[in-house]
Amino acid sequence: MSAIAFPPVDAAIVARRPEIIAGLAKLVEPAGLITSEAELRAYETDGLTAYRRMPLAVVLPATTEEVSRVMAFCHANGVKVVPRGAGTSLAGGAIAHEDAIIIGISRMSRVIEIDYPNRCMRVEAGITNLAITAAVSPDGFFYAPDPSSQLACTIAGNIGMNSGGAHCLKYGVTTNNLLGVKLVLIDGTVVEIGGGALDSAGLDLLGLIVGSEGQLGVVTEATVRIIRTPEAVQPVLFGFDTSEDAGRCVAAIIESGIIPVAIEFMDKPAIEICEAYAKAGYPLDVGALLIVEVEGLPTDIAAQLAKIVEIARLHDVRVVRESQSAMEAALIWKGRKSAFGATGRIADYICMDGTVPTSQLSYVLKRTGEIVESYGLRVANVFHAGDGNMHPLIMYDINDPDEQRKAEDAGNDILRLCVEVGGCLTGEHGVGIEKRDLMHHQFSEADLAQQMRIRAVFDRGWLLNPAKVFPLESRHLETV
Amino acid sequence: MSAIAFPPVDAAIVARRPEIIAGLAKLVEPAGLITSEAELRAYETDGLTAYRRMPLAVVLPATTEEVSRVMAFCHANGVKVVPRGAGTSLAGGAIAHEDAIIIGISRMSRVIEIDYPNRCMRVEAGITNLAITAAVSPDGFFYAPDPSSQLACTIAGNIGMNSGGAHCLKYGVTTNNLLGVKLVLIDGTVVEIGGGALDSAGLDLLGLIVGSEGQLGVVTEATVRIIRTPEAVQPVLFGFDTSEDAGRCVAAIIESGIIPVAIEFMDKPAIEICEAYAKAGYPLDVGALLIVEVEGLPTDIAAQLAKIVEIARLHDVRVVRESQSAMEAALIWKGRKSAFGATGRIADYICMDGTVPTSQLSYVLKRTGEIVESYGLRVANVFHAGDGNMHPLIMYDINDPDEQRKAEDAGNDILRLCVEVGGCLTGEHGVGIEKRDLMHHQFSEADLAQQMRIRAVFDRGWLLNPAKVFPLESRHLETV
Repeated sequence: MSAIAFPPVDAAIVARRPEIIAGLAKLVEPAGLITSEAELRAYETDGLTAYRRMPLAVVLPATTEEVSRVMAFCHANGVKVVPRGAGTSLAGGAIAHEDAIIIGISRMSRVIEIDYPNRCMRVEAGITNLAITAAVSPDGFFYAPDPSSQLACTIAGNIGMNSGGAHCLKYGVTTNNLLGVKLVLIDGTVVEIGGGALDSAGLDLLGLIVGSEGQLGVVTEATVRIIRTPEAVQPVLFGFDTSEDAGRCVAAIIESGIIPVAIEFMDKPAIEICEAYAKAGYPLDVGALLIVEVEGLPTDIAAQLAKIVEIARLHDVRVVRESQSAMEAALIWKGRKSAFGATGRIADYICMDGTVPTSQLSYVLKRTGEIVESYGLRVANVFHAGDGNMHPLIMYDINDPDEQRKAEDAGNDILRLCVEVGGCLTGEHGVGIEKRDLMHHQFSEADLAQQMRIRAVFDRGWLLNPAKVFPLESRHLETV
Repeated sequence: MSAIAFPPVDAAIVARRPEIIAGLAKLVEPAGLITSEAELRAYETDGLTAYRRMPLAVVLPATTEEVSRVMAFCHANGVKVVPRGAGTSLAGGAIAHEDAIIIGISRMSRVIEIDYPNRCMRVEAGITNLAITAAVSPDGFFYAPDPSSQLACTIAGNIGMNSGGAHCLKYGVTTNNLLGVKLVLIDGTVVEIGGGALDSAGLDLLGLIVGSEGQLGVVTEATVRIIRTPEAVQPVLFGFDTSEDAGRCVAAIIESGIIPVAIEFMDKPAIEICEAYAKAGYPLDVGALLIVEVEGLPTDIAAQLAKIVEIARLHDVRVVRESQSAMEAALIWKGRKSAFGATGRIADYICMDGTVPTSQLSYVLKRTGEIVESYGLRVANVFHAGDGNMHPLIMYDINDPDEQRKAEDAGNDILRLCVEVGGCLTGEHGVGIEKRDLMHHQFSEADLAQQMRIRAVFDRGWLLNPAKVFPLESRHLETV
């Protein structure tokens, strides 16, 4: 029923399941091994809920040493391994297979060390994104990348997907805020990459690990940059008649050289869905909203806002609402941050994740609407406009196989369009299984072969998260 | 006489020199091939002038296609290739060998396309760093990384070494300002990596290329991010009694969360050398100077400066001099930017390039002085303090082999110290041949082996810039 193929299950491994489970049981304590069907059900999918596959078993190690032992065991026995953070992946990156175990790192969630003088901290990789900020916010610091799922998602998952968030316009994505990792390779070797200092000698393996979607190893610790909380922040709401006007205004703000902390975009369907759910006080008589947030010293905020409002007026802004209190500011964000949950209340949806040059935003928004309409479906757009990271939510009925296929086809058309205008397939959700077969549109065969050869350096047997990222039919290009 | 070993010359290649030159002559126009001894002399060293080796020949291609043909020829004939930008490397990264040709890209220096709406531009990789900014500065934009050698050095060299500069504290180093490259692999294949959009799907090969010191391919085009020129900038000069005071003040500024555009440090020897040369009006009765530059809207500058001055006063600042005009500001920078030239007037020197956590600056400065003194030599310190990127200039007599050895030993001791306190061997100059044998101090054998396996994916025959980066005696670790 599904459009995305999984590779065939390795029957020999499935047949050896009791033996494999017995072997794993010797490596971790009982609380760290899940094998019953009822409990495994919790791990059969992730944020891409239309696809479900049962894992052979789930291991939840408590230490790097346990991860190492489990990896060495799987390597020696040819057992595939799917690393999993909190399972919030929207691209199917954490879905396993009947011949693969899941290594979940949710039990490794401690803060190891906070180093304020050098503005960094070391954490176990199963800690949630928000818990990192929570550990340092009493002292006036925060961790910058803030995916919508930050209450649940882990830093390990953020590293795997190079996650961003609303505030990455100013502070960058995960790769700009990560200083080092402890990584367990498939044969159980533990390596430390990077550390507390800027840059490093030799090849930049840290950059390679970020965004590698669990295919190069299991991250068990991370050293992240922490930033001083700004003196003040202020979000402003701008309403426009059309999405095109709002898109052009975003391009003009970016072109002016001002870098707000965030520029978030919502089109009319998104406004209606979020307002019905969150009662954020959004105007309902506009075609698109922008939330623009600036920060700094109070005088600086006023000066930046004056410039931004001036640019918005040049682009026919209809509504300008500056937050006058912390509560108003929180309400403005509440609507935006509830977008995924609010949409889920009224329909099943898939959330696309293409990135385009900001000058193309207006055009791509228009074409997105036309594409989805041509399949007879509805779309809501709510996304990080400042860095061109679009998130069309295509709504459909998950119980109607025909609609699911149409939604996926529409999504693929949109992502192809993103690549055509100079953008790319994913901004932060990763390729996973969802966009695996679209990689041909982004990369040449030579590019894919080169990436797969590098992947093979880390995992010659293709055991780590094997069904993901690279098109199944391109695997012959892997010539190492 | 030199402390750094070169691998043995491949006599079979040297014997085939006439045939190789004849082959190359068919691939590029006459102006693009240098073979006479007199002309080759210009290419026998780079910024690490104590080491000299003649190349077999120098090729100066005019197009990516010519680079591709030359690479394919070298690959087929087992000829080593050393890519060269402007030859300003301080770590010997552009020095070749009698059995290797140099591919210089200085003739490929055009601006291809400027895209203001998306704040990026595409250039041929032989363009100088300063020429990039010069092309867009009339329209109010600039390219952020600004190495001291920016008048001469190329973007290709900047990419190879992940170069920084005084202003990278705020804007990041090359890797944070590069969006894409056109890269010619050793077999002549041309690949495009990255492009105009943030992030990319698949493995982050762009990050891997940056800082790979010409060992993965020859970069022929680059797409770089350009930034709006700020409304105003203001440098301030702070004088302290001791280097330790100045070092602690830097740590306190960073810890406070303020991010100036630049924090530059000069100790007493550096102040005296620069003042004698540049007549910048530096105070001579202090033990250390900081140049702190802030930028933004005028009100914002005033607010930031007030905070920084307050922090400096808490650290016993003796002199505070705010520039009152553009000319005064230029004079403050003139002294700093002339440091290398001014030092070269009075002595031979090697310039080290370790990076340390800013909280360790004060301690490492003290130990640096003690180490160099223990070898009976003098040192001047002038460096990018805000990001902990130290540049001790160790002065010695290049004609005294014993002094050269002592200077190199002192430099090695300092770099080992940088690694011990949590820093690394290089901030921006790269490993080259200079720090090749120190890589053991930064990396485990497992780390080095993993890096070499990845290197081998790009260059199985170890033909590209082969004598650099990886310790010669570790090459057996390359198991692919």
